Amino acid sequence: MSKVLTSRSEDYSQWYNDLVIKGELADYSAVRGCMVIKPYGFALWENMRDQLDKMFKATGHVNAYFPLFVPKSLFEAEEKNAEGFAKECAIVTHYRLKADPNNKGKLMVDPEAKLEEELVVRPTSEAIIWNTYKNWIQSYRDLPILVNQWANVVRWEMRTRLFLRTAEFLWQEGHTAHATKEEAIEETTKMLDVYAEFVEHYMAVPVVKGVKTESERFAGAEDTYCIEALMQDGKALQAGTSHFLGQNFAKAFEVQYLTKENKQEYVWATSWGVSTRLIGALIMAHSDDQGLILPPRIAPTQVVIVPIYKGEESKPVIDGKVKEITQSLSALGIRHKYDNSDQVRPGWKFAEYELKGIPVRIALGLRDLENNVVEIARRDTGEKTTVSIDNLANHISQLLEEIQQSIFEKALSFRNNNIRKVDTWDEFVQTLDEKAGFISAHWDGTSETEEKIKEKTKATIRCIPLNNTQEEGKCILTGNPSKQRVLFARAY
Amino acid sequence: MSKVLTSRSEDYSQWYNDLVIKGELADYSAVRGCMVIKPYGFALWENMRDQLDKMFKATGHVNAYFPLFVPKSLFEAEEKNAEGFAKECAIVTHYRLKADPNNKGKLMVDPEAKLEEELVVRPTSEAIIWNTYKNWIQSYRDLPILVNQWANVVRWEMRTRLFLRTAEFLWQEGHTAHATKEEAIEETTKMLDVYAEFVEHYMAVPVVKGVKTESERFAGAEDTYCIEALMQDGKALQAGTSHFLGQNFAKAFEVQYLTKENKQEYVWATSWGVSTRLIGALIMAHSDDQGLILPPRIAPTQVVIVPIYKGEESKPVIDGKVKEITQSLSALGIRHKYDNSDQVRPGWKFAEYELKGIPVRIALGLRDLENNVVEIARRDTGEKTTVSIDNLANHISQLLEEIQQSIFEKALSFRNNNIRKVDTWDEFVQTLDEKAGFISAHWDGTSETEEKIKEKTKATIRCIPLNNTQEEGKCILTGNPSKQRVLFARAY
Repeated sequence: MSKVLTSRSEDYSQWYNDLVIKGELADYSAVRGCMVIKPYGFALWENMRDQLDKMFKATGHVNAYFPLFVPKSLFEAEEKNAEGFAKECAIVTHYRLKADPNNKGKLMVDPEAKLEEELVVRPTSEAIIWNTYKNWIQSYRDLPILVNQWANVVRWEMRTRLFLRTAEFLWQEGHTAHATKEEAIEETTKMLDVYAEFVEHYMAVPVVKGVKTESERFAGAEDTYCIEALMQDGKALQAGTSHFLGQNFAKAFEVQYLTKENKQEYVWATSWGVSTRLIGALIMAHSDDQGLILPPRIAPTQVVIVPIYKGEESKPVIDGKVKEITQSLSALGIRHKYDNSDQVRPGWKFAEYELKGIPVRIALGLRDLENNVVEIARRDTGEKTTVSIDNLANHISQLLEEIQQSIFEKALSFRNNNIRKVDTWDEFVQTLDEKAGFISAHWDGTSETEEKIKEKTKATIRCIPLNNTQEEGKCILTGNPSKQRVLFARAY
Repeated sequence: MSKVLTSRSEDYSQWYNDLVIKGELADYSAVRGCMVIKPYGFALWENMRDQLDKMFKATGHVNAYFPLFVPKSLFEAEEKNAEGFAKECAIVTHYRLKADPNNKGKLMVDPEAKLEEELVVRPTSEAIIWNTYKNWIQSYRDLPILVNQWANVVRWEMRTRLFLRTAEFLWQEGHTAHATKEEAIEETTKMLDVYAEFVEHYMAVPVVKGVKTESERFAGAEDTYCIEALMQDGKALQAGTSHFLGQNFAKAFEVQYLTKENKQEYVWATSWGVSTRLIGALIMAHSDDQGLILPPRIAPTQVVIVPIYKGEESKPVIDGKVKEITQSLSALGIRHKYDNSDQVRPGWKFAEYELKGIPVRIALGLRDLENNVVEIARRDTGEKTTVSIDNLANHISQLLEEIQQSIFEKALSFRNNNIRKVDTWDEFVQTLDEKAGFISAHWDGTSETEEKIKEKTKATIRCIPLNNTQEEGKCILTGNPSKQRVLFARAY
């Protein structure tokens, strides 16, 4: 197999697109900005989704499902939220097509089937959900409500990229309702912790937990907490957000509850979400010029076995041995695949499974069997070792854990080496252009300065890290006093 | 707790609505015809979905995800399919809202953001998927494609009912591509068998497998296979369909493959789906005037434990014993809930869990503990027994299997008693009105007769059963010769 990917050094952005398409994760579709998630990409998403779902349930949440459409009058009820999403909404205006009298065999929108009120295809579900919670909440006994939804949402983005920014994407959105402010804030940070744990322990991508500045907040939130990851090209990527919504939606939708003291109070809210965008983060955090590198805990296939046949008579011998091996792998719950197709050569298969990012490859031929060994290759390091068939499954099981850890450590060390403290404007600009990564710098705390920095450099404040060190300093742009450093970066 | 449901004999339709809403399965929403699936209803759907998903994967299928929107030009490509769905489509025509200059704080559709080509919100995905398969299929090596999608779809129905017929619903749609006609037909019937197995063995609802008549076929199919169930009120419900699509979509989207013999041939297709409608079938097949009756295999909670406290000092004693019991239930994978809240009395809880259809209730008080027993109540029969705490979990496990079986047998016997052979028109009309159920009768095989029977009686041909007995007879309406009986019923 010839080289299939543009190299990262040549064109990182093209490398990413090549990888998504040739790795068979996703593809463009006939619908502007919408992607098709192919079976291999979807299997990856299923593993991520199932693990997240377990973690949501373990923290007391249940799933539900709310309508895809939001009537315009509900959509506009929370003004900031509406303003934030109005410019990128798909709008349903009609409910019927009819035969086009001027164009045989073609259809046209039936002008007589115009909706009285337009429907917005949900870009996020706060409005439709809080309009529903109004009916679910009467007294403190009805609280908290801890609901999550797995759904598709649509945001009419002008520039789209597979997984990273698509008009339609899949996500989960948690929407919780609480009696007190404290409880809602606790929920917001608890779910941030769940996201961080998932992204670090399962996706092997280290994150910085922080709070967004006012201008980067979710439309309608009082505070947006986030996890920020660093990609190999030095750009940051927001991997998940958890919003403390205060009483904004409760007030917009008149959701009050009767307290134990018999008073009417507005309900406190949170929402939090991660999406198929995480797959983009996963790819850009770990993969190389040969293809994907997937962490074992979420890889659809953890081990691929490739036989090295020599003549027809070797087949039953090797196949027989592999059967024993796959049974022992299954017994340990290891997801594996035996590729004994004879349409392509082993070398072609090796390249294919490197492209697909399968963490461990086992190869075995007749001579290996005579010696009771197989060859094992690690996808992440390329390292090859010869190991005994005895106790192979246990060895693989440990190796998978080792790979998981090793991928994380590598990304962590890269990330840590790419957080740079900078104290002057010149150094700031130079670092952004020459090294990229996160820049830890002082900022005077105003939206105006933040906006100017963005205009001049395209860098944004990714977050104010949680438990940030407080120190006196001067804003890199204005020289005005500052109490803490924040993290800047150019971002996806 | 007072009686909360309208009784079935009083008003079956109202009983159904009461049960869906008071059983907290689903609720109406602010969007015309769209429902909110509440956490309890969604937990039920998750169990059904997960089991189906396992069965799809065990038969070689993988999941993927395709866009929500279908450009009008693709939608109209397969003419029969387009014609079948054109009248009930939600259409996206714009992609932006803007501030309404005449109405402060309100939004309006931005006329400048009109789409060049309208987008249909998918009522089903054959068009968008076959337009994609065109790129996936070149030669026989690319076949078969065995893909399934879990998704929301929208059909702008005029009369909607919770779960049974909603504008938006959740479903799965399998879309497969094959090299030969035989293979595609084999896939169609294989998936029908999977549906039948799921509905009978998990939902405990017996079904008749059959083929639809031409006029009841899926728009764009060559043949539609179906499973038909019977509800308690004697009306039939189509529980799932599996379509042999021939080469219709391959021709509409120009999907050809190179055969082993180096010839270009059109690809053969199937599609098959079941939806949240199944929840409606489940409710109407089993439940009673006290509430839901859920089969143990898909019940979100299989066992509820209610303590009968007498004074504060009894609490730690009972709670301690229950802890042992719940541990032993967990060890056997039994889904259980301990309700020791003291805000309501045991009698209220009993009624609540009857309403929710939890298959087994365990109640225990101090005196029971002294005798080392608990009281067990079966939801399906109402039967109560006193059993020893020793070996309780095993007893419950067997009981759950027994209940599963018993619910199915009851529904089966009802269904079998309600298939009636009828040979004259008068008898046909009388049976429909007085007894309902399935009517097995001769039909002359023409769409005209079928249509007339429907106009006169609202009964439709539910299916021509598979492996149907061939016998000479006369059509009940026209007296024309017929070779077999078909199943008629009024249906949901």
